[in-house]
Amino acid sequence: MAKEKKAPKPKAQTPKGFRDYFGTEVTERAEMLTQIAGVYHRYGFDALESAAVETVEALGKFLPDVDRPNEGVFAWQEDEDDGKGDWLALRYDLTAPLARVYAQHRNDLPLPYRRYAMGPVWRNEKPGPGRYRQFYQCDADTVGAASVAADAEICAMLADCLETVGIPRGDYIVRVNNRKVLNGVLESMGLNDDGQRDAVLRTIDKFDKVGEAGVRELLGKGRLDASGAYIDGVGLSDGQAEPVIAFLTSKGETAAQTIENLKAAVGDSAIGAEGVAELEQIADLLAAGGYGPDRIEIDPSVVRGLGYYTGPVFEAELTFDIIDEKGRKRQFGSVAGGGRYDDLVKRFTGQAVPATGVSIGVDRLLAALREKGRIGSQSHGPVVVTVMDRDRMGDYQAMVAELRNAGIRAEVYLGNPKNFGNQLKYADKRESPVAVIEGGDEKANGMVQIKDLILGAKIAESASLEEWQDRPNQFEVPRDQLVAKVREILESYA
Amino acid sequence: MAKEKKAPKPKAQTPKGFRDYFGTEVTERAEMLTQIAGVYHRYGFDALESAAVETVEALGKFLPDVDRPNEGVFAWQEDEDDGKGDWLALRYDLTAPLARVYAQHRNDLPLPYRRYAMGPVWRNEKPGPGRYRQFYQCDADTVGAASVAADAEICAMLADCLETVGIPRGDYIVRVNNRKVLNGVLESMGLNDDGQRDAVLRTIDKFDKVGEAGVRELLGKGRLDASGAYIDGVGLSDGQAEPVIAFLTSKGETAAQTIENLKAAVGDSAIGAEGVAELEQIADLLAAGGYGPDRIEIDPSVVRGLGYYTGPVFEAELTFDIIDEKGRKRQFGSVAGGGRYDDLVKRFTGQAVPATGVSIGVDRLLAALREKGRIGSQSHGPVVVTVMDRDRMGDYQAMVAELRNAGIRAEVYLGNPKNFGNQLKYADKRESPVAVIEGGDEKANGMVQIKDLILGAKIAESASLEEWQDRPNQFEVPRDQLVAKVREILESYA
Repeated sequence: MAKEKKAPKPKAQTPKGFRDYFGTEVTERAEMLTQIAGVYHRYGFDALESAAVETVEALGKFLPDVDRPNEGVFAWQEDEDDGKGDWLALRYDLTAPLARVYAQHRNDLPLPYRRYAMGPVWRNEKPGPGRYRQFYQCDADTVGAASVAADAEICAMLADCLETVGIPRGDYIVRVNNRKVLNGVLESMGLNDDGQRDAVLRTIDKFDKVGEAGVRELLGKGRLDASGAYIDGVGLSDGQAEPVIAFLTSKGETAAQTIENLKAAVGDSAIGAEGVAELEQIADLLAAGGYGPDRIEIDPSVVRGLGYYTGPVFEAELTFDIIDEKGRKRQFGSVAGGGRYDDLVKRFTGQAVPATGVSIGVDRLLAALREKGRIGSQSHGPVVVTVMDRDRMGDYQAMVAELRNAGIRAEVYLGNPKNFGNQLKYADKRESPVAVIEGGDEKANGMVQIKDLILGAKIAESASLEEWQDRPNQFEVPRDQLVAKVREILESYA
Repeated sequence: MAKEKKAPKPKAQTPKGFRDYFGTEVTERAEMLTQIAGVYHRYGFDALESAAVETVEALGKFLPDVDRPNEGVFAWQEDEDDGKGDWLALRYDLTAPLARVYAQHRNDLPLPYRRYAMGPVWRNEKPGPGRYRQFYQCDADTVGAASVAADAEICAMLADCLETVGIPRGDYIVRVNNRKVLNGVLESMGLNDDGQRDAVLRTIDKFDKVGEAGVRELLGKGRLDASGAYIDGVGLSDGQAEPVIAFLTSKGETAAQTIENLKAAVGDSAIGAEGVAELEQIADLLAAGGYGPDRIEIDPSVVRGLGYYTGPVFEAELTFDIIDEKGRKRQFGSVAGGGRYDDLVKRFTGQAVPATGVSIGVDRLLAALREKGRIGSQSHGPVVVTVMDRDRMGDYQAMVAELRNAGIRAEVYLGNPKNFGNQLKYADKRESPVAVIEGGDEKANGMVQIKDLILGAKIAESASLEEWQDRPNQFEVPRDQLVAKVREILESYA
């Protein structure tokens, strides 16, 4: 590298809140992204890759759902001679760049514009356990389609994505709700004061955590929370709070019944009726496409994002149980969410453009698949060709080339070959399934030794079990049968 | 999104030197990276993905081959209450993070450690035409292997990568040189003055541009360059310059002849002899693996990176001709390079660790494949199901679901369906191969119309050609034959 400094040695550390990913952590995620991209593509969505860096001006100096609008991003000022360079920042999501891209290129893009994007985003937040400042997002959005057919399509696509990456039908559910229905409920309650509406919205956002009884308390006089602090209530009477509760609990046995309950909950509010009609239309479109309530259902208890989105909202949950870190059984929970939002492009052009989209949490999905043992269980390392005679590196190189040309992952040992034990330790660390050995005697006889390391490990583990001990785990075969024998062993473990 | 500001509208612009990538630009690159990752993996290299952000301390505040060691990166200071937060920066390559990762995790990593990494890097430099401040790198490195078998392996892997992504044998060559040979030449010349050695090195770096005669002038009295400026020479006599010229031009008909020429050029320098022996060993190992001089050759005229690397250096060039922007025929040139470098980890641990690696310029490779028409020629958009009757969106949704379930890329038109002409314009913009139409009459008769848009475009282009005019480009088929007929048309263009 360049000149060395006399300064003290630098610390070999990732910055706080960042981490490194190794081996299958990288490849399993890449594979999942490829699978999801395949589904997005089949639905007609086009790939978009914008840079990690945007001007702060274009990004907007705000994060959704964050109280401190000017914080949360990594930003710096461009060097310019006059000291007035642009402020640049790392993107904090993939939606803000989509807004900029659509505004910048709108004359060249199709309308509606279906696009998908996948890649890292950055948040300048306090890191915590399992909470990183760089993470992946994997989004699909339709810009410029006012019809809820666009929302229905995204729900169907989300279900297809989950099944494609390995979540079987029955292990997930996509739930759909609608902000307009909630607006209708608020309207029918006669809540026209913005402050009070916002207070009700904030309360509803807590439904996930505090449940129906908790929401009743918070809509009324207030509530003692788990930490012992008293949370002031919105101050509604029990009767006033009733429509909100009716909305949140209106899910019936069938979609038709849920729709009936919602119609009652919104009373004679026009916007509420519009919202219910949209949900009905979404349910009909999904049914026409073959997506029944075993995959996608109308569920007014979905509240995540209701404050952020303007129309339909959706959330995908995995419904199987896992055992959490405290040993308790619980559902795995949400792995994707989205909804309809207006004014995506309005900041730039002054023109409102409707949009709807979804974001899949790939890292949570990967965790779920690992939890279920569907990935990451049995990945072997490469075949290791050992070096018995350092002057015959060409012979070993020839073997490894043959194996690779046959599509078998293989390497020659590249460390100091003096200590053969180190070579086997290396193969062990690499989780190699097979080691290849050719000493002087074998070379003279035209043979090679092939060691089945998986069987070897089994024998070592269960030394008392005769069934293993009787099986040979090392084979001497003619040199020209190297590839065939290695393949045979690998296939026996496939 | 969040609250609107009253401020003037933001400009919808990428920051200077950044750009957006759309559709096949994204997917073709992703596919190439997947193919290269497959080769790296087969060679036993493990994936590593570090964060985009490193501490400036860990990164080192320098770029290779850049005169201004403290510039060139995007950096900012962490917010801390005491104002003394760490300085963070975006990585400028994938090698500096590898050094940090290896130092940080060395007790858990195998030794030698073969790793590959692919992803964007950032340079805070003045952007120019075709020169961006974010671009992809795609690296493989072996850390902790002193043997040149590691270098030979990387050369073989590079050749395999090029063939895997679609550069046939004969259209590329991997050239190998060795910094130690050059050191030997300098030693045999008796050049012990560091300043003069550096001057000779800088001159050699210009061999690509100024050729043999130019290098002679620059090693001697100096040279008038193309812009009319006079470049001072190193001040060697013709006789003194001779060994450098002999080194640069020592390529013979065969590897053996080149080696002989090099042996002569280094005289009795020990380090020079070591370098020549390494090149000989690399040639032997490659021959043993079946990689002949049609794919990889020893070529002492490779000078790129000689100043940076400490042992073998390699470069992959595409050897076919292209027509440049000025209409001149020229070779496509370099698409990958690498070599051996010491002290990768020494900054962190004080311990020298040998390493060697390669970086493939994926964007240049993609440009080459496009130039040769091997990718990007015939990519169609999705099948578009048009909306004749907005009340029957469910019917159209059912069609599009059937097509997608059959693996056919398809979408329903999601814009305002009022103007049917707009729907066909949309299909045109999407480069759709097929449009599906079902009006009220078709619905009543159980039929659908299927429009072959590729044939339609051909007919429109060549209206006078009867052979096209006679062929129908719209078909009415029973509804239950929708998928079969669409597939038939798509397959006829596959």
